[in-house]
This record gives sequence, structure tokens and C-alpha cells, in this order.
Amino acid sequence: MKITFIGLGVMGGPMAGHLAGKRHDVTVYNRTASKASQWARNHGGQSADTIPEAVRNAECIVTCVGADRDLHAIYLGQDGILANAPQGALLIDHTTASGEVAQELARHATSYGQSFIDAPVSGGQQGAENGQLTIMCGGDEAAFSRAEPIMAAYGKAVTRMGSAGAGQLTKMVNQISVAGVVQGLAEGLHFAEQVGLDQQRVIDVISQGAAQSWQMENRAGTMIEGEYNHGFAVDWMRKDLGICLEEARNHQATLPLTALVDQFYADVQNMGGGRWDTSSLLARLRGSGG
Amino acid sequence: MKITFIGLGVMGGPMAGHLAGKRHDVTVYNRTASKASQWARNHGGQSADTIPEAVRNAECIVTCVGADRDLHAIYLGQDGILANAPQGALLIDHTTASGEVAQELARHATSYGQSFIDAPVSGGQQGAENGQLTIMCGGDEAAFSRAEPIMAAYGKAVTRMGSAGAGQLTKMVNQISVAGVVQGLAEGLHFAEQVGLDQQRVIDVISQGAAQSWQMENRAGTMIEGEYNHGFAVDWMRKDLGICLEEARNHQATLPLTALVDQFYADVQNMGGGRWDTSSLLARLRGSGG
Amino acid sequence: MKITFIGLGVMGGPMAGHLAGKRHDVTVYNRTASKASQWARNHGGQSADTIPEAVRNAECIVTCVGADRDLHAIYLGQDGILANAPQGALLIDHTTASGEVAQELARHATSYGQSFIDAPVSGGQQGAENGQLTIMCGGDEAAFSRAEPIMAAYGKAVTRMGSAGAGQLTKMVNQISVAGVVQGLAEGLHFAEQVGLDQQRVIDVISQGAAQSWQMENRAGTMIEGEYNHGFAVDWMRKDLGICLEEARNHQATLPLTALVDQFYADVQNMGGGRWDTSSLLARLRGSGG
Amino acid sequence: MKITFIGLGVMGGPMAGHLAGKRHDVTVYNRTASKASQWARNHGGQSADTIPEAVRNAECIVTCVGADRDLHAIYLGQDGILANAPQGALLIDHTTASGEVAQELARHATSYGQSFIDAPVSGGQQGAENGQLTIMCGGDEAAFSRAEPIMAAYGKAVTRMGSAGAGQLTKMVNQISVAGVVQGLAEGLHFAEQVGLDQQRVIDVISQGAAQSWQMENRAGTMIEGEYNHGFAVDWMRKDLGICLEEARNHQATLPLTALVDQFYADVQNMGGGRWDTSSLLARLRGSGG
Ligand SMILES: NC(=O)C1=CN([C@@H]2O[C@H](COP(=O)(O)OP(=O)(O)OC[C@H]3O[C@@H](n4cnc5c(N)ncnc54)[C@H](OP(=O)(O)O)[C@@H]3O)[C@@H](O)[C@H]2O)C=CC1
Ligand SMILES: NC(=O)C1=CN([C@@H]2O[C@H](COP(=O)(O)OP(=O)(O)OC[C@H]3O[C@@H](n4cnc5c(N)ncnc54)[C@H](OP(=O)(O)O)[C@@H]3O)[C@@H](O)[C@H]2O)C=CC1
Ligand SMILES: NC(=O)C1=CN([C@@H]2O[C@H](COP(=O)(O)OP(=O)(O)OC[C@H]3O[C@@H](n4cnc5c(N)ncnc54)[C@H](OP(=O)(O)O)[C@@H]3O)[C@@H](O)[C@H]2O)C=CC1
Repeated sequence: MKITFIGLGVMGGPMAGHLAGKRHDVTVYNRTASKASQWARNHGGQSADTIPEAVRNAECIVTCVGADRDLHAIYLGQDGILANAPQGALLIDHTTASGEVAQELARHATSYGQSFIDAPVSGGQQGAENGQLTIMCGGDEAAFSRAEPIMAAYGKAVTRMGSAGAGQLTKMVNQISVAGVVQGLAEGLHFAEQVGLDQQRVIDVISQGAAQSWQMENRAGTMIEGEYNHGFAVDWMRKDLGICLEEARNHQATLPLTALVDQFYADVQNMGGGRWDTSSLLARLRGSGG
Repeated sequence: MKITFIGLGVMGGPMAGHLAGKRHDVTVYNRTASKASQWARNHGGQSADTIPEAVRNAECIVTCVGADRDLHAIYLGQDGILANAPQGALLIDHTTASGEVAQELARHATSYGQSFIDAPVSGGQQGAENGQLTIMCGGDEAAFSRAEPIMAAYGKAVTRMGSAGAGQLTKMVNQISVAGVVQGLAEGLHFAEQVGLDQQRVIDVISQGAAQSWQMENRAGTMIEGEYNHGFAVDWMRKDLGICLEEARNHQATLPLTALVDQFYADVQNMGGGRWDTSSLLARLRGSGG
Repeated sequence: MKITFIGLGVMGGPMAGHLAGKRHDVTVYNRTASKASQWARNHGGQSADTIPEAVRNAECIVTCVGADRDLHAIYLGQDGILANAPQGALLIDHTTASGEVAQELARHATSYGQSFIDAPVSGGQQGAENGQLTIMCGGDEAAFSRAEPIMAAYGKAVTRMGSAGAGQLTKMVNQISVAGVVQGLAEGLHFAEQVGLDQQRVIDVISQGAAQSWQMENRAGTMIEGEYNHGFAVDWMRKDLGICLEEARNHQATLPLTALVDQFYADVQNMGGGRWDTSSLLARLRGSGG
Repeated sequence: MKITFIGLGVMGGPMAGHLAGKRHDVTVYNRTASKASQWARNHGGQSADTIPEAVRNAECIVTCVGADRDLHAIYLGQDGILANAPQGALLIDHTTASGEVAQELARHATSYGQSFIDAPVSGGQQGAENGQLTIMCGGDEAAFSRAEPIMAAYGKAVTRMGSAGAGQLTKMVNQISVAGVVQGLAEGLHFAEQVGLDQQRVIDVISQGAAQSWQMENRAGTMIEGEYNHGFAVDWMRKDLGICLEEARNHQATLPLTALVDQFYADVQNMGGGRWDTSSLLARLRGSGG
């Protein structure tokens, strides 16, 4: 299939690679052009210099950029995807963004005779590289049926959660849950340290029971070591929690813990940790806890 | 071995039963005497009417009561365990209590020529009944070596975490971590409900990744149904979080999330949910979230 | 002076009335036209049917609408204030909105040869009616000098805080401070009630010292009675706290208490209290506290 | 009247001085004896070396020590106040302590034929020195009638709030309210700083309205300067908030903000600010906020 991939970052780059690996005819576009030509050299597809050129003949366009405003930038306007992609094109977006923007783009796509699927992912850089992402999708069933086999190239679990925006909202539930787990784990480790316990030993014991979590199994060790370069960055997390809180505002949900942890991540940013991973909430407690 | 078990509640009853099942010579005592005679009828040991009578000839005394003040009531004073148990006796306490009381009792025990192990458990009623508890111990190594094979009757993992009090402190790390996980999960489910997602489907998808936790796998389903009778009660949890916060105060640890969730459990108590299980934080959000 | 007033709500109506009372030649416009004609009948000015008609000949245009998006609606576009007001016009906005929108409108105004002052107020409905508002202004000095005597009609204190947006940001500091005072006061009153103290007597005593606040002196009495119809609504407060948190996000400020109280106001909204005044945080505690 | 004063700290010293100034026959006792003899040299009363000696002939005994455990130390036991003061003695305690300990001491006093008044104060060191304290009392009316004229020596407002413990509980309402005000103010000032406003100017403007508080008028200026040596220490505040939270636990009150601010004060302690005054919550935000 003729597929165009826009946004060759930490996540998008490897995802596009998996598509190329499945013998799709892949064209890439990246705002910083050098990444696109580099990618084409490595993977053998074409790179385009502009969005109109990139999407003109695509059957499917896959995007993975930063946030709502970036989606506005690449989808809307006369040089945007919507105005330049052919009628009938399938648009798949892997950006973590708001449910609102997903609905807006889905509506616009329909008016162009195109189909839009919001499809944020979890699994991190490693999941993108290994092609083991979890993909949460929103959009109509027919479009999803077309999109699913394409995403199978890098997704280990691809699920349609409901109509437009449902993928984004599902991802938000994920982030809300992670926020609680990580802050709880950070406080547990901080407490263990202050009272003089052997932190790793504590984790080994309590991870057998009701306190267990993916974060405890995969991050506690590095947190204890003070290594916070194992994944999803605090700056991204704040963006996501900002979206959660905004959606909650619009849907009368009340998220006190999420709101507070979001502020704690602001503290981490102010400590210079915007690029640390989300487990750095422990650094914040240590910073204050001497 | 001649073992006396004191405190035949939800946890202690089955634990004493496992000891009897291992062919120990078990004597039981319970404040409310009827539970003791009932237990003896079921399990074939002896029941004693007073603590002095119960402990006089015991080689090992195992206790599982409510909280610090209950430990004071059964251990101290002239009718208490310490003053009436033989020299050389091994004392094992499964109550979840403060590290401070554990250290205090260990000190007193030493002065009576006895040995004390603090050994709080996790795994809940089911773990007690199946003999699959995780047991976190504090105390000196020699005493632990004597205690370990006894506890093996109902423990799947029995670990010495350090000197007196270390068992309790480890349990506190467990509770702190659980508090974060459960509130995060509750907010996630509440958000999912408010935005109109299929909650169970969301959990099925996100439990594959970084948001996964024991609570998500074992409690999300019942939370969605509004069933909150699956385990450890909110009243107990508040006691435990109270201990965490008190220990934190004494050890210069800072636990903002734990402090907040403790107050949220106060809300649950005020909704009449003191006997609901800890996952009822969702009821609180639903109550306020219409 | 020829002044046009747009937005005759709870605040704008009386403010426009004070301008008319100062013998300015006042034209009013309101989205819901009936309010405009009603106002004109009461105060003797003119009412216009459209924004272009309302602003075409105005020397000064004063606005007081709801929030950012409403400012976009009335200022921008070909039927908006900016495109239709004369060159040299002075634009004064009393809406509580973001610093960002104030800067955006100020920039646009400049490009039209007009001057824009952001001038949010505090003092509530009563202050608007009595002409006793506190007005916090942002914009350049020359424009402020022209605006100040006009606003004196309803302001007891009119201060220029800095360049465009500085008025809005000052108002945000006000709202952040109020959030803390009110939640602290609500918790104090709730505690007093639960422990069985005479709440009013407590307030009489403690308002003499370090716990004193405007809220304590002016709202504690009605809070105790459960009357929450004395002013600024929770829905407005959430809008304002949302702006605070958004600005904080952009300026690396960390506002944990504000974030939490914002969620508590979400609880109040979910209790049906969106139109109650901000002191209704006590209702929330009572709701949960039986 | 023959009055004995025990506890010549920052607060007690000047209070005892005011009693001497009213021509009472004052005997003082202080754990660290040098303070007592120093006081006697300055004020002309007697100093005693032990509590029994100090209280044996007293008609009234006034105490002002640290916390619950200190009250246990000086009141209970065979060398304590209760066992050595004459029958009929009036006991007045100015320590900020729990309502529970006040009730316990009142009960004991009754059994000795003595009367106990819990009488915590607000107004700080300055209030003690100027004799301008606010005094919140609990105890029976007859005892209060006897106590009131004595306390008038250093109290500008002396109020009986109810039976034993009511004084302490009133003080707790004070501290809860202060916690909210100060954190709100700190966040407001921090926000103002981060967005580049002139903080003092902002305070001058907003202190005219609904955000006004004693803290804003008396502490904002020094907070802006980063001076945190103007009164009541963070270590004391944590003790007090600990009492609030414990009482709340016992009376089913829910205090989320108080619980959180208590943890923020833990952060301040960990920054080395245990002796800074309570307005140092701003230092915490600045620390994290660069
Ligand atoms: N339930 C659970 O899922 C878990 C509980 N725990 C911890 O285990 C401990 C016991 O819990 P659980 O078995 O559920 O509690 P129960 O309330 O079922 O049992 C408590 C037992 O302690 C006895 N007891 C309490 N106070 C006294 C006292 N002052 N003097 C003498 N006996 C006393 C009670 O006697 P009586 O029969 O007379 O009331 C009863 O036998 C607690 O510390 C709890 O936090 C830990 C993990 C899981
Ligand atoms: N009420 C208070 O105590 C205080 C309010 N404020 C702030 O003042 C502002 C106004 O508040 P208040 O007067 O109480 O609000 P009201 O809801 O009473 O009035 C709002 C006014 O704005 C008009 N309006 C709103 N949206 C639009 C739009 N998109 N296009 C055209 N007109 C619009 C409304 O028109 P229509 O009649 O057609 O709805 C109405 O005239 C708000 O920003 C508020 O936060 C500040 C301090 C205190
Ligand atoms: N400082 C303030 O601004 C305010 C304080 N308070 C409250 O007033 C009380 C006293 O505060 P403050 O005067 O500042 O405290 P200080 O630390 O200055 O003084 C405490 C006094 O208590 C004595 N003391 C403490 N523990 C014992 C003990 N176990 N046995 C015998 N004496 C003891 C100390 O004796 P020694 O000299 O031997 O240490 C000292 O005389 C506290 O409860 C505080 O919370 C209330 C309002 C304001």
C-alpha cells in the first residue's frame, strides 16, 4: 500500500520503519528535513520535502507529532494533510492529543471524504522499536477495519475503543493510572530510604502482592539508583496530564490526585528534570527529603 | 512445638488453623472467649481463658490483634504476655502496628529473656486461609531462624527485613504504594465513566502496559460493578496510613499523596464505607461525580 | 465622551450604569438584545443591534463578557470590535480572562491603531453596583492615562500593574490567594463542627489574630448557616482557576493547593453547586462529613 | 495571689513577667534551671529547683511547655504537679496540645480536688511580650471565672469556648485556617514572581478585597524579601497540624488541605527550615521553582 508517514521522532521513526519492513511503499515527511532523508537512506523509501507532496498520492497517511497545536499545524490549512490528501484516504494519528482535537479532525476528514482514526500508543520507545505497541483507537468501524492490518506492523494489541476521540480518552485513563502508581511508588521508596530499609529488598518482597505494578517491577530498581532516563519524559507527561485535566473539566470528572501529581511534575521540571522519565518523582522527594 | 495463638480474628483464626494442621500443640486465647472455644472445637487444640494461662507453658506465642494499643493491652502489665511467658519463649506478632511499638516490645522481651519478631503480613483473608501470606519480619537473626519454620505453615514468602520494627516499616511501604495505585486507578475509572468509555474494555487494554498493577487486574472489575467487599477494610487502611504518616513524621519523610489519600478514606468512612474494601475510593469519586 | 459598553451581565450592567451616571454618551450592546433595550430604558442611553453599529463611532469601548472564547467572539473577525472601531479608539476589557488573550488583543489593537487595556476587577456584584471595584490593569501608560478617569466611575482603586496582560495576571494572584483562604476556612469550620464547638464563637475569637481574613469576616457567618448565594459563582471560579493553572504551566510556577482546590470545586459542581458562591467548599466537606 | 509559673520559654517567660508586674507573688520553675534563676533576677520573684517545691504552696499554677508528652512529664507521676499541688489549686495550661490530653489532665485534676483550664494562646512572641494574647479556654465555668482575671495580665481577649479541651480545639481551628491562608498566599506570590509582576504592588492592590488576610498584610512583605524569622516556627506548626489531623481522625473530620500543607512543612523542615516561621512555605515553592 502507498503509505505516507509524517513525524519521524523517537516513536514515529521506528514505526515507519516497521511499515517499510512490511513491504509497504512508504513516503516520509519530517519538519526537520534531515531526519526524513536519513530515514529514507536507512529504510529505502522516499522522502518528501513538503506535506502536499508527501500526501498527494497516499492511500494511507500516518502521523505521529507532538500535541494538539502540532496536529493543527500539519492537518489544517491549505498546505495541510486534509486539503492535499486524496479523497478516500485513510488518516491514522498516533500523537497523544486531546479527544477534542481528534473529534475535530475526524469531522474535517469526513467533509473531505477521508477517514480519520485517533490511535495513541503506549509501550514507549522500546515498544516502537520492537513493534510491540499497545494501540488504542477511536473512529468508525469501517475505517478501523482498514487501519488495523496496517498498524499490526508495530502493534501487539490494536483495539477500537469507540468513536472518534475514544482512543485518546483511553490513553488518558492510562496516564491517570500511571500518575497514581508512580507517585505512590516514589513515596514508598522515599519512606523506605528515610527509615533505613534496604529498598531493593523491600520491593522484592512487596511486589509479590497487592502493591505490585508494572512500574514497581520495571522502574523501582532504576529509581533506587537515581536513574531517570528510562523512557517517557516528564515534559510529555505534563502535556498528557494537562489534557486529562482539561477533558475532566469538560466532562465533570474530578481528578484530585492527577492534578496534584501534575504539579509535582512541575517541580521536577523546575529541578531541571523535564527530560527525565516519569519515575523521577522520587528525585523530587529526595530533593526535599535530603 | 507448644504454640499459643492470641487473636482469632479474620486473619488470626485461619493462621492458627494452619499451625494446628502442622501438628503443633496449639493453645488459643481470644478476648471474646466464644471464638476461642469455637476454634478449639473445629481444630482440636486447647483454648485458654486468660492470657497468663494461655502463655505459661508455651515455647512460642503468636499474636494477631488490631493495633498498637491492643498490643499494649495483651503484652504489657502483670497479666500480659511478657510477664507470664517463660524465659526463652519466642514471640511472633502478626498485627500491623507501628515500628515504634515493635521496638518497644522487642526491648521488653529481651529484658524478660524472650525474643520478639514483628511479622506483619500481606495477602488478606484469602492469603490467611490458603496459607499464602507474604510475611515481612523484623528482629534478630537467631530469633528469626527459630520463627521462620513456624510461619512457613501459612506464609508463602517469609523474609527478614532487618532489626526490630523492620517488618512493620516494610508493611508501611506496601500500604503507601497501594494508596497511590488505588487512587490512581479510581480516578482512571471515574474519568473513563464520565467520558463514556467502556470501562472494562479500557482496563483490558491498558493492563497490558505501564499502567498495569495487581489492583488493576484484581479489583478494577469489581470496582466497575460498585462491589467493595473484596478484602481489606477502609477502617484498617486508615489505621495503617495513620501509622505511615506518624513514622514519616519521625523520620523526615514527606508523603503528600499518602496524606491526601488518607483524607479521602476519611470521606469514605463518612459515606458509611468504613467496612468497604480499599478500592472504594471510586465510590467517593462517583458520589461527588454524580 | 462617546462610550460603548458591551456585555450587560451581573457586572457589566451596573458598570455601564455608572458611566451613564457620569454624563458620558453611552451606547450599549448585549448578545441577548432584550437586556440592552432594558438597560437603555433604565439609563437613557442608546442600544445597538450589532457590534459594528455599536462601536463605529465610539471613542472608548468597554467590554465585560465571560471568558477567552467570548473575547475572541466579540473582538475578532469582520463583525468584531477591532475591525469596526475607529482608529484611535480606546478599548477597555473587564472580563476575567487569560494573560495570553490580553496580549493577543493588545497586539491586534495596535495593528488597528487602537489601544487595549486589560482591566479585570474584584469586588463582586456589590462592588459593581456601588461603584467600588478594585481594577487591575495591564497596557501601555498612555492608554492607561486615558482609561483611568473613565474607570473611576465605578472603581475605588484603579492601578496599572504593567504591560498588556499584567491586569489579568494580578487578578490570578487574587484568585489563587482566595482559593487557599476559603479552603482553609472551610476545613476550620468543618473541624469545629465535627468536634462540637460553637462555630460562630470560634470565628469571633480567632478572627482577632493571625487566622483573620476578609473571607472569615464576611463569609464565615453565612457558611455556618449553609448559605452559599453571596457572590462569585463556583463556575466562574473554576474558569479562573483553570486560567491560573494554564498560566502557571506556561511560566513554570507550581501551584499544588490551587490545583487541588480547583478539583474540589469540581466536586461542588457535581453536587449541583455550580451557581453557589465560592464559600461552598464547606458544603463539600459537610456532604462528605455527614 | 501565690502563683507558680512552669516553663519559661519564648512564650512563658514574658507571660510570667506580666504576672509579676501585676504584683502577684510569683514562683517560677524551668527544666533548664538557669532560665529560672535568670528570670527571678529580672523580675524579682522566687525560683524553685523542683516541681514539688514549686507548686507545694501555690494557689494557682500556670504552665507553658512544648507538647503532649511534656505535659505528661510535668503533670503526672509522683514528682508531678497534680500529686504535689494543694487541693483547691487552679491549674492553667497555655501549651498548645491535644484536646485529649486536656481532658485527661482535667479529669485527673478533679480527682485531686484541683481545677484545670486548657488555655492555648495566639498572638506569638510579640503578643506574649506586649500582653496582647488571644486566649482560648476550656474547662468548667467556675474555674474559668477564677482564671480569667489572672490571664488578663497578658491576654487582650480571654474567652471560654466550652468544657475541657475546647480551648485546644479552638486553637486547632485557628491553625487549620492559617495553613490554608499561608499556602494560598505563598502560591500567589510565587505565581506573581514567575510571571514577572511586581509582587509588593500586587499585594497592595489585592489586599483591598476578598483575598485580604492578616497574613497578607503582615507577612507578604517579608516573604517577598525571603525573611522567614518573624514568628511561629515550622517545627511548632507541624506539631500543631499533627494534633489537628489526629483530632480530625477521632472526630470524622476530613482535612485534605491541612494534611497536604503539613507535608509541605515537612519539605521545609527537610530544607533546613524547621526554625523558620510558617510563612516559609514560599521558600519551598521558590526552591522548587528556581
Ligand atoms: N483483614 C485483612 O485483610 C488484613 C489484616 N491485617 C492486619 O491484621 C490484624 C488483624 O486483622 P483482622 O484479623 O482482620 O482483625 P479482626 O478484627 O478480625 O480480629 C482482631 C482480633 O484481635 C483481637 N483483639 C483486638 N483488640 C484486642 C485487645 N485489646 N485485647 C485482646 N484482643 C484484642 C480481637 O478479639 P475479639 O474477637 O475479642 O474482638 C480479634 O481476635 C490487623 O492489624 C490488621 O491491620 C493485615 C493484612 C490483611
Ligand atoms: N460576578 C462576579 O461576582 C464577578 C465577575 N467577574 C468576571 O466578570 C465577567 C462577567 O461576569 P458576570 O457579569 O458575572 O457574567 P454574566 O454571565 O452575568 O454576564 C456575561 C455577559 O457577557 C455576555 N457574553 C458572554 N459571552 C458572550 C459572547 N460569546 N458573545 C457576546 N456576549 C457574550 C453575556 O451576554 P448574554 O446576556 O447574551 O448572555 C452577558 O452580557 C466574567 O469574566 C467574570 O469572571 C469578576 C469579578 C466578580
Ligand atoms: N512561640 C510562639 O510564637 C507560640 C507558641 N505557642 C505554644 O506555646 C508553647 C510554648 O512555646 P514556646 O514558649 O515558643 O517554646 P520554648 O521552646 O521557647 O519553651 C518551652 C518551654 O517548655 C519547657 N519544657 C519543654 N518540655 C519540657 C519538659 N518535658 N519538662 C519540663 N519543661 C519542659 C522548656 O524548658 P527548657 O528551657 O528546659 O527547654 C521551656 O521552658 C508551645 O506549645 C507552642 O506551640 C503558641 C503560640 C505562639
